[in-house]
Amino acid sequence: MSTIVPVNVGTSRYQLTVGSHLLAQIGTLLDGQGIRANQAVVITDENVARFGHASAVLSSLQAIGVHGHVIVIPPGDKHKTLATAESMYHELLSFGLRRNGLILAVGGGVVGDVAGFVAATYQRGVRLIQVPTTLLAHDSSIGGKVGVNLSEAKNLVGAFHQPRAVILDVAALATLPPREWTAGMAEVIKHGIIGDKTLFHKLHARPVVAFSNPDDVECMIAQAAAVKVRVVADDERDFKTRMKLNLGHTIGHAVEKVSNYALNHGEAISIGIRMESEIAVARGWLTRGTSDLISSTLAAHGLPVTTPGLSIDTVLDTLRLDKKHEYDHWTFALPFDIGDVRIVDDVTEVDVRNAWAMSTGEERA
Amino acid sequence: MSTIVPVNVGTSRYQLTVGSHLLAQIGTLLDGQGIRANQAVVITDENVARFGHASAVLSSLQAIGVHGHVIVIPPGDKHKTLATAESMYHELLSFGLRRNGLILAVGGGVVGDVAGFVAATYQRGVRLIQVPTTLLAHDSSIGGKVGVNLSEAKNLVGAFHQPRAVILDVAALATLPPREWTAGMAEVIKHGIIGDKTLFHKLHARPVVAFSNPDDVECMIAQAAAVKVRVVADDERDFKTRMKLNLGHTIGHAVEKVSNYALNHGEAISIGIRMESEIAVARGWLTRGTSDLISSTLAAHGLPVTTPGLSIDTVLDTLRLDKKHEYDHWTFALPFDIGDVRIVDDVTEVDVRNAWAMSTGEERA
Repeated sequence: MSTIVPVNVGTSRYQLTVGSHLLAQIGTLLDGQGIRANQAVVITDENVARFGHASAVLSSLQAIGVHGHVIVIPPGDKHKTLATAESMYHELLSFGLRRNGLILAVGGGVVGDVAGFVAATYQRGVRLIQVPTTLLAHDSSIGGKVGVNLSEAKNLVGAFHQPRAVILDVAALATLPPREWTAGMAEVIKHGIIGDKTLFHKLHARPVVAFSNPDDVECMIAQAAAVKVRVVADDERDFKTRMKLNLGHTIGHAVEKVSNYALNHGEAISIGIRMESEIAVARGWLTRGTSDLISSTLAAHGLPVTTPGLSIDTVLDTLRLDKKHEYDHWTFALPFDIGDVRIVDDVTEVDVRNAWAMSTGEERA
Repeated sequence: MSTIVPVNVGTSRYQLTVGSHLLAQIGTLLDGQGIRANQAVVITDENVARFGHASAVLSSLQAIGVHGHVIVIPPGDKHKTLATAESMYHELLSFGLRRNGLILAVGGGVVGDVAGFVAATYQRGVRLIQVPTTLLAHDSSIGGKVGVNLSEAKNLVGAFHQPRAVILDVAALATLPPREWTAGMAEVIKHGIIGDKTLFHKLHARPVVAFSNPDDVECMIAQAAAVKVRVVADDERDFKTRMKLNLGHTIGHAVEKVSNYALNHGEAISIGIRMESEIAVARGWLTRGTSDLISSTLAAHGLPVTTPGLSIDTVLDTLRLDKKHEYDHWTFALPFDIGDVRIVDDVTEVDVRNAWAMSTGEERA
């Protein structure tokens, strides 16, 4: 089986296909969606290449007569840079990729972001296929945000470049290390809170702590992705409702940074969701019961909901830097209920400090 | 007086304003077009800064309460690189430019291209105002093509990022060195050949060899720009009719490169237009009389129409590299008449060699 989620965003129309063993049939799959090319370059990282995912994609393309090439980059966020992009441009050029060729990003969020940025800018833009191989990347592969980091700030250089297709092979998730699986669940739970009560309550009732039945995983990912698809459809360029997707990310990004990336993205987001729920409770927007439901669901998936050892003062310093032009009143996406996340623009330092105290048992401000 | 040319391309609507002494009133001019911001960064190069154009723009913005900053880059095509873009990102970040701020590119084509690329990618895109200060840049500032060079190839990395406004102050052109004026006229004449018989015949009857009456210059630029506006409106992403704008550029780029940039862009384009006219004559598409009219108009503006000292073999080597995926039959934009340029996809090496011989008096192949 496979599940199709149609994506309509801006002037783009494409499909997210979730299913098992899709990598080896990606050539015919794309052909069936009307996406054809004589040339294709697969971009991946060393970790993903080791599992044979990129070569499966390459073989599948070659089998239908596409002239293909694989570019392998070193793994990790520290390689999500303009320098990596530049080395890709040179390699694309020496392969001779034309404007009507395809770029396929096979890997996690870093590969998707940097390969996506290269696809957005090589010869002023070539067609991009996102092929996420991590659970976390079910999120980042949809919606067209691509980019690289600068030393001072993440994702500071980038573009909106919608893929022509997203192909998510759940079989690739079977080999994920447990900690990466868990990290991915943070975004799945987030999508449940933002827009799918049924998904959220299912996860609460039966936590998905590891890859198990492929059909169940397929169904769960399609539901989580559908939330993201609905939100980005309303606001491609991230000026309004798309900010809902920041749930957990405002505090999460600061926590991730302050931990010096000892906490991974999913773990930091989990802590962020918990803290932001506490803010919403303190302001009278979210019930204590629902906040506890959120916390216990995150925890049941093995995700942290508190921050042993991190200092709230350092977290606030980082938040202040991120928010440097918002001064006293910060914009947050906060949960009002399961399925009801809203943008609030008057969160203060005191709100954050109190939420922190609440969740760590420290004293309130 | 000032002339407004409305531009409708893709989903973008903006205005080209051509007039005298616009730099000093750019703040109110943009405000009148509904373009408002709290922050603006003016990007320019050292040569342009010397004439005070960037500081005039900055003062005008500050006068209406905009918080502004000027970034000055070294002049010349060799600085149209990712490294220059990266240094700009850092400077924008240290100024604190937000997503709702403006970037104004004040200068020639290089400034417009690289500042435009930065505007397209900084925080996934901020609003761009093109403020061309050369005659040549009346062309590049319209249509949204922005980008930087790689060592192997020009404009290989880029985006389509339409400006929110183009403001062309003809007073800034009064200080152009004669050779730069002449180079700009090559694109003006090209636009006449592509889509404005009246403009072309006016230039033929009374060559505009230097900046003279500002109102005449304003009128001429508005007419030339209107041709470009019409062509890009039909084909924002350059897949069809926009290729007409390549008239003179296929051979021109090769000639420019082979001359090792001793010939500037306008001069090389002039030679390209002449050669490509000869190809059209040989194929029976253009009359000898019209081809001579084109040559004499270019020459009357002080532009070269032949290539003393360049070897056709070297030019063909370069063309072959540019066209490496087109093999025997090359795509050219060729003149069929004044106001009638068409895309032809079966030009051969022999065609180019014969046109070369025709224009230089060398022996035919």
